[in-house]
Amino acid sequence: MTRVYNFSAGPAALPQAVLQIAQQEMLDWQGTGMSVMEMSHRGKSYMSIAAQAEADLRELMGIPDNYKVLFLQGGASSQFSMIPMNLLQGKGVADYINTGAWSKKAIAEAGRYCDVNVAASTEMDKFTSAPSQDQLTLMDDAAYVHYTPNETIGGVEFSYVPQTGEKPLIADMSSTILSRPIDVKQFGLIYAGAQKNIGPAGLTLVIVRDDLIGDALNGTPTMFQYATHAENGSMYNTPPTYGWYLSGLVFKWLKELGGLDAMAQINERKAKLLYDAIDNSGFYANPVDPGCRSWMNVPFTLAAPDLDPLFLEEAEAEGLVTLKGHRSVGGMRASIYNAMPEEGVRKLVDFMAEFERKRG
Amino acid sequence: MTRVYNFSAGPAALPQAVLQIAQQEMLDWQGTGMSVMEMSHRGKSYMSIAAQAEADLRELMGIPDNYKVLFLQGGASSQFSMIPMNLLQGKGVADYINTGAWSKKAIAEAGRYCDVNVAASTEMDKFTSAPSQDQLTLMDDAAYVHYTPNETIGGVEFSYVPQTGEKPLIADMSSTILSRPIDVKQFGLIYAGAQKNIGPAGLTLVIVRDDLIGDALNGTPTMFQYATHAENGSMYNTPPTYGWYLSGLVFKWLKELGGLDAMAQINERKAKLLYDAIDNSGFYANPVDPGCRSWMNVPFTLAAPDLDPLFLEEAEAEGLVTLKGHRSVGGMRASIYNAMPEEGVRKLVDFMAEFERKRG
Repeated sequence: MTRVYNFSAGPAALPQAVLQIAQQEMLDWQGTGMSVMEMSHRGKSYMSIAAQAEADLRELMGIPDNYKVLFLQGGASSQFSMIPMNLLQGKGVADYINTGAWSKKAIAEAGRYCDVNVAASTEMDKFTSAPSQDQLTLMDDAAYVHYTPNETIGGVEFSYVPQTGEKPLIADMSSTILSRPIDVKQFGLIYAGAQKNIGPAGLTLVIVRDDLIGDALNGTPTMFQYATHAENGSMYNTPPTYGWYLSGLVFKWLKELGGLDAMAQINERKAKLLYDAIDNSGFYANPVDPGCRSWMNVPFTLAAPDLDPLFLEEAEAEGLVTLKGHRSVGGMRASIYNAMPEEGVRKLVDFMAEFERKRG
Repeated sequence: MTRVYNFSAGPAALPQAVLQIAQQEMLDWQGTGMSVMEMSHRGKSYMSIAAQAEADLRELMGIPDNYKVLFLQGGASSQFSMIPMNLLQGKGVADYINTGAWSKKAIAEAGRYCDVNVAASTEMDKFTSAPSQDQLTLMDDAAYVHYTPNETIGGVEFSYVPQTGEKPLIADMSSTILSRPIDVKQFGLIYAGAQKNIGPAGLTLVIVRDDLIGDALNGTPTMFQYATHAENGSMYNTPPTYGWYLSGLVFKWLKELGGLDAMAQINERKAKLLYDAIDNSGFYANPVDPGCRSWMNVPFTLAAPDLDPLFLEEAEAEGLVTLKGHRSVGGMRASIYNAMPEEGVRKLVDFMAEFERKRG
């Protein structure tokens, strides 16, 4: 068996050590004689798996006690509706910062439930930067402020946490969660689809401050009310049990590596290695303002775009796969989440240099 | 490794042959060097897995071309809202047949969006039967008729398909889908959480006739509109890719066993073995009208309920697990879905006889 280095933006690579445990336990979890995916979610074994995963996540992220951690389904796309449906709480407007494709999706859906004040947009710059704090125009009567700390497609990451006064700050952390420490109490609600930096697709994490739960819009489906899940420990109905278990294995793996401080150091090194290779090449280019470059998603173009197919073909032959850029952007994109080892980035950088030497 | 016979109502046992394939392929699907759960859902490999699963399901169930098959998230509980939100289409009332706990949940949620006409209820009989066709009082102006062909908790199954004229018939088949052949074209929409008779929790199948898609209530979240998923091949956002893959393995396994005709014969035999053992015992009892007994979920009580804990303990020592009845009912429940081999039911029946001999 040869494992590849998989630069997919999501669903993305998982730590090999985690997959090996999952493989070993597939038919028999710790002597129970059954797979985790065969367990009743209300049984003792599964309840212990679920509780341990939550406890490990709380420890990793330093989540305060007045925040609930919800293990949901439906992806970030469901959160785009759940956020206005649950957090408007009688107000008619919400602030949204627009820094790319995922911000725009969140804005479009929120616009079906309230007026959206676009507090700042970098669309004029083709989404190659993030606005600074003093460029944000927040509305006094907005229910909350929403932003996308890391844009998976554009590769733009905020280097600061927007200050929003009394208004809760809501963050789509799908592609940056667990990549470095954050101060959870600066946020009202954090959400993330699992399939980038947590676990397999089909699980969505929501970390929400207690006082924001309840008071959903009339007609909000029961399953779209945070209160439903908060009051039932994410087991109002059957949760995505296997994804929850795998995420727990990832949390344990992160703790063993030294937690988010250690991951931040590794991720910063990985990103620097790749951006330096791009900047020093004269053949590759990344369009993003250097102060806003993502540690997780690195789009880059070749000076000769007609070589794109050859680049992808030769990379794949070297075991460097899923490097094709998003269909809306073109070029290449290397997603280098926690599960991508430094060795994988080093191999990519070496391949890029060799490709430039031969073909550039 | 010793595998147990797991009688869980859901998440439930999966075929051992399927788990073995998943185990083998965990780190490397067919030479790609990656796990299925690491694949981009838009890549060639995953698209082939997804398409094959749908094709096999269509073949197994004989799904006509004018029905879409959707691979969704959120469980049957999300369908309880999606059905009225999508299918009322301007009407103000819907017919619901009430045969137990899951019917009641569907009714409660629908009541938030329309008037519910309870077309029949067996609550007076403590949900031990299903109404006959001539006991159904359908409303002329109802948008659709909803029922639960098999009640997982009560163990009550319809032996016929209600005739509803022009009105679409909607069925929660979570615990009976794939257990026997059905005539899909008698239904407007069929839905099922995967975790009983399809695959792992976190995937929900919806089979819906084309003409019923579209025209959702104002304010229906984009992710709760069938049109969103129908127009995007269930890939509007990232689907639960691993669950979809595992379900595909289950469909292939069912085809190899001879399809749903063969499963119906096996399931009928399994159910008969267990009901006969109960009826002939004088110690065990099942309260359900013999004409409406479920092939999939068999609740039973002991003549001496104080022996329940001992029964469970001794059964577990024999590798017969998760037999405890639902918390709302008590006693025992053996769920004997497709993945439960006949040998497991035989072992349960032998154990029951031996327990009665020793303790009865």
